[in-house]
Amino acid sequence: MPAPLVVQKFGGSSLADADRIRRVARRIARERAAGSDLVVVVSAMGDATDELLALAHGITDDPDSRELDMLLATGEHQSATLVSMALHALGLPAISLTGPQAGITTDGRYGKARIANIEPRRVQAEIEKGKVVIVAGFQGLSGDTAADAEITTLGRGGSDTTAVALAARLGADRCQIFTDVRGIYTADPRHVPDARQLPVIGYEEMLDLAGQGAQVMQARAVELGWVNGVVIEVLSSFEDAPGTLIKEDPFVEQRNKVRGLAHDRNVAKVTLVEVPDRPGVAHAVFAPLADGGINVDMIVQNVGHHGATDLSFTVPEVDLARAKRILEPVVRDLGFREMTTDSAVAKVSIVGAGIQNAPGYAARMFGALATAGVNIEMITTSEIRITCMIAEDEVETAVQALHAAFELARPDDVTDAADAGGPTASAVAS
Amino acid sequence: MPAPLVVQKFGGSSLADADRIRRVARRIARERAAGSDLVVVVSAMGDATDELLALAHGITDDPDSRELDMLLATGEHQSATLVSMALHALGLPAISLTGPQAGITTDGRYGKARIANIEPRRVQAEIEKGKVVIVAGFQGLSGDTAADAEITTLGRGGSDTTAVALAARLGADRCQIFTDVRGIYTADPRHVPDARQLPVIGYEEMLDLAGQGAQVMQARAVELGWVNGVVIEVLSSFEDAPGTLIKEDPFVEQRNKVRGLAHDRNVAKVTLVEVPDRPGVAHAVFAPLADGGINVDMIVQNVGHHGATDLSFTVPEVDLARAKRILEPVVRDLGFREMTTDSAVAKVSIVGAGIQNAPGYAARMFGALATAGVNIEMITTSEIRITCMIAEDEVETAVQALHAAFELARPDDVTDAADAGGPTASAVAS
Repeated sequence: MPAPLVVQKFGGSSLADADRIRRVARRIARERAAGSDLVVVVSAMGDATDELLALAHGITDDPDSRELDMLLATGEHQSATLVSMALHALGLPAISLTGPQAGITTDGRYGKARIANIEPRRVQAEIEKGKVVIVAGFQGLSGDTAADAEITTLGRGGSDTTAVALAARLGADRCQIFTDVRGIYTADPRHVPDARQLPVIGYEEMLDLAGQGAQVMQARAVELGWVNGVVIEVLSSFEDAPGTLIKEDPFVEQRNKVRGLAHDRNVAKVTLVEVPDRPGVAHAVFAPLADGGINVDMIVQNVGHHGATDLSFTVPEVDLARAKRILEPVVRDLGFREMTTDSAVAKVSIVGAGIQNAPGYAARMFGALATAGVNIEMITTSEIRITCMIAEDEVETAVQALHAAFELARPDDVTDAADAGGPTASAVAS
Repeated sequence: MPAPLVVQKFGGSSLADADRIRRVARRIARERAAGSDLVVVVSAMGDATDELLALAHGITDDPDSRELDMLLATGEHQSATLVSMALHALGLPAISLTGPQAGITTDGRYGKARIANIEPRRVQAEIEKGKVVIVAGFQGLSGDTAADAEITTLGRGGSDTTAVALAARLGADRCQIFTDVRGIYTADPRHVPDARQLPVIGYEEMLDLAGQGAQVMQARAVELGWVNGVVIEVLSSFEDAPGTLIKEDPFVEQRNKVRGLAHDRNVAKVTLVEVPDRPGVAHAVFAPLADGGINVDMIVQNVGHHGATDLSFTVPEVDLARAKRILEPVVRDLGFREMTTDSAVAKVSIVGAGIQNAPGYAARMFGALATAGVNIEMITTSEIRITCMIAEDEVETAVQALHAAFELARPDDVTDAADAGGPTASAVAS
């Protein structure tokens, strides 16, 4: 019987300095001693990515996206070599590979590339030589030939996607995401003291939480795990404690309950005032944003004061300046009266399978926020989620009020206490 | 007529921070505005390479050489992207390429790879697109296929070699090495206040100076320039001033004069005490050092006190620990009495074409050192050089005494003052 294959991913805070890197190496060595073959995906050390971004912005306000990708990719190259050296120091054969060396190719969109393919020959060959393979996360190669090969990065948190994609392609037995929290919680424990860790959460619920600001895992990684049936375990790299499993939850339809909260401060609101009422306006506004790679999230059209309509939507706060630059000529051409923006806003969401079929939840959410004195600016919903936009400085008040209103500190009726892996075990966010 | 092609190389101190990188970009832009096509080779920013080495040594005392190369190469990747961004900010089309992307392949020896080939297709294609091409120095790709491709580095100062090799391969019209000094001097100006800058120096003299510790350029780069007839200009990146040309000097044989001094503190002496007098001993000692890639320089065999012989030689100080590890079993097997080492030593050299044919120079050198109270431990000579090993803390005294004894502060009889490019213009060191 071949050895089980485990993919482990370690985030930047787990690799912030030499001591932590050595600790990560010891953990890898323990797993190896237990008989597993290992592929380890690493992020850049600590704040390395932010420091590289600061370097680039010290040179120019608007760094070229191709050059920026090449710059940022070095962060993961560095941490991969250091983890490999730390394993050598423990007497463990290991080799670091860049994303390109690991055979990861992408669609070539700088800063937000998607993995197109993984050619695992080299990774498998190194495993067969008995080596622990350390792969630089967050990156891959675009281009068909060596002559036009370019380094591309997968966007923030992209190392999660690297890990899940490698686990899927290699048919790994486990995919472990080591992070600086113990797992997935009913709300961010920094804001809600009685937030509870969940033993299991379904892919779909996790996806909505991640998409709405829960920072534990990149949403695309969850999606990729879902599509490929990779069971993902989120756990702490600092303590030996059970984490949270993200996996298919066949009983999700039978539940009817809020599983957790998410919030996102990295959001800005754009309002186009007095939209002319004619066909094609929405396309004229949103197509250039999409071309610019800017994700628009909540979209609300309000009746304005002067007979015309106002169009509001959210974009990631980091993209706001660029969104304004893209929209300025559009606003002029289409004859809007003006464009206003507000980045002092945030989103709070409740997530749970079945929410859509139980309208009482929306009323309870709005009521809890009103009682707490939190004003709601915009509302959107999905199958399993309700999101409200509020003022950024009211996030903490809002999530505490919602955590209490939906009794999230209480273990689930059926499972949590006794049966961690049980069918109705719960969903959630950080 | 095609535009002239210029290869420029900027060292780490010229790229130490955002301001300096922007200054380098403005200098490149000036050259570009003058109508040249440009390939720019960059080193890592400031102390980046030392910081990466420190990171590695924070993890393990003995980092794997393959992983170390991959780690160190990121320093030049980073600075290349930043210079490219700075050029974009000036409105100049530019693209950064890693050594592998620039088609540079090596013989695969980690930490001291030699360039095996340059396939210039991509560089030429980018030049034809009107771009300034920024190449990460100090590195290349080994391995025949994408599957076993490995990043290898060319050793300290390897970016000089990258620049000269690219200039040779591309048939560049000029090859400029920008550094933190104005050019090549008769001695290190930090130690000898009246050291004089030379307008021209021959390849051979420069090679001996670089090999003996003058740090302005990597010796291999000079050698490569010599073999390929690349005229190299060494000049300051901080001021607009004429530099020193390194080129073929057809009148070198007619000279008979010391051209300059070099010194090297990065050296350690190894003595094997009481060598058994039988054939094969030297091979048994030096072969494993060569296999370990350790350069042995001065070799002296002294008559010992007990009828047996002592064998002394020098190795680079950074390789001393490794040399000792390699030699310990050899010393045991061959029956030496003991091995002693001393790293508080240094080399001082006088360099000048024709020295060998004029024995008076050796006597004058030894006399000047004796008068200055500097003890000589070992002596070696080449065609155009005499090197003495002395105590490290006497370097300054020694170079000042030699600079005065050989009247190096005085311009050459024939040329310097009037004809900077003239045939007998002089040689020298930093």
